[in-house]
Amino acid sequence: MPRLKLTLAYDGTDFCGWQLQRGSSQRTVQQALERALGEICARPVRVHGAGRTDSGVHALGQVAHCDVPASRAEVPWVRALGARLPADVSVLAAETVDEDFHARLSALGKTYTYSLWPEGRYHIPQRRNFAWATGPLDEAAMDAAALHMTGTRDFRCFQNAGTPVRSTVRTVAAVVRGPGVFPGETDWRFCADGFLKQMVRNMVGLLVAVGQGRFRPDDVEAIIAGRERAVAFATAPARGLCLTRVHYDPPWP
Amino acid sequence: MPRLKLTLAYDGTDFCGWQLQRGSSQRTVQQALERALGEICARPVRVHGAGRTDSGVHALGQVAHCDVPASRAEVPWVRALGARLPADVSVLAAETVDEDFHARLSALGKTYTYSLWPEGRYHIPQRRNFAWATGPLDEAAMDAAALHMTGTRDFRCFQNAGTPVRSTVRTVAAVVRGPGVFPGETDWRFCADGFLKQMVRNMVGLLVAVGQGRFRPDDVEAIIAGRERAVAFATAPARGLCLTRVHYDPPWP
Repeated sequence: MPRLKLTLAYDGTDFCGWQLQRGSSQRTVQQALERALGEICARPVRVHGAGRTDSGVHALGQVAHCDVPASRAEVPWVRALGARLPADVSVLAAETVDEDFHARLSALGKTYTYSLWPEGRYHIPQRRNFAWATGPLDEAAMDAAALHMTGTRDFRCFQNAGTPVRSTVRTVAAVVRGPGVFPGETDWRFCADGFLKQMVRNMVGLLVAVGQGRFRPDDVEAIIAGRERAVAFATAPARGLCLTRVHYDPPWP
Repeated sequence: MPRLKLTLAYDGTDFCGWQLQRGSSQRTVQQALERALGEICARPVRVHGAGRTDSGVHALGQVAHCDVPASRAEVPWVRALGARLPADVSVLAAETVDEDFHARLSALGKTYTYSLWPEGRYHIPQRRNFAWATGPLDEAAMDAAALHMTGTRDFRCFQNAGTPVRSTVRTVAAVVRGPGVFPGETDWRFCADGFLKQMVRNMVGLLVAVGQGRFRPDDVEAIIAGRERAVAFATAPARGLCLTRVHYDPPWP
């Protein structure tokens, strides 16, 4: 059976995240994709995603793989799935890959982007589901704080309760601020070999707390070293977060 | 009574346009704004907008004026209205202006932006309400066609049925293509002293028809000179259109 690698974009606003919720009527991206693939293949198709994005989190470069019947080898997947998927999911690319390719296990790392709107008095309605309106932030302090967030470290302090994992050590290659795609926004980019549950949203929560003067940049070092989920900073809202890329090709990071 | 000038942004997706629909339950931006102003002023407030955007059309720089009771002169309007308006409208700025200022009559011109997504196989879900996915376009041909659309001319060919107007002559200062704010999109900017009903959407419809090879750039000259609404090109969908600025200060255009 040919193995397909699919690159996906979705507006996460109306999805309860990526992962299929068994026995639930909640709408998920995996469910939408499996339904469309099942229609084309005339049999159930299981899809494996690279990252389990939370409810409300978006993607511009999620990757998934699945095995399809040999009889469907010639299907123009991008168009065929596009015709069957709801308007808030798109397949950007589809390619046949080796059968040892696995969307999650073959990934060397991922890049997420988080968009902040640092204007306190109003928000831009067109961006209300895609950025976090925080009010004014001290960006120099945030840049200094971000320097403490890279390296190979135990990032347990940024993990929310949930899926148990063997190790909470991750290698974060970059936490970098840049101008937002949308004028006036600031985009933070996070690159790592992997992320713990809600890790990026907790990192953003702490960065914003620093930007608001509630922590000093140097406090970040102690918070990470403390290996406890500090309650003093909030988990950033899902809506500002986007899975922008999954990296498969070395050298990475 | 102090006169207020309000600068507004809205996501037009779920609005039946700007204008209050008398005796209708349809949701409009003017209605939302008058309701919020009425709550703050404890009396009915009539709002006058610079442009009557259609259903589904967005704004990042719509302007409106209204008269408020002197007792409300010190209200922090941006925050007070922001707290009462639905999430798909925002007040970006509020200032007290001379009583002879009129949002529509004082305007020297307007700028609209239209976003095109020239990829035929898929769309970006996050942009589905903000750009028109047309498929591949010959942009050089569109640039040549756009040159015929400027100047002081009778633009009746771009007017859809509707509000009768005294004159269909307008001065179009610019029809210019540029890179989109969002990667991969193309933004067309239209500047004029005024626009006829659905004029920008019809100009975009014709530009796209040229880009798809259904008209030659030089045909545009004859279409405008013919002063008839040609049926051979479509009115572009509302979703790609945004009222980006209303110009009050000379020299303009």
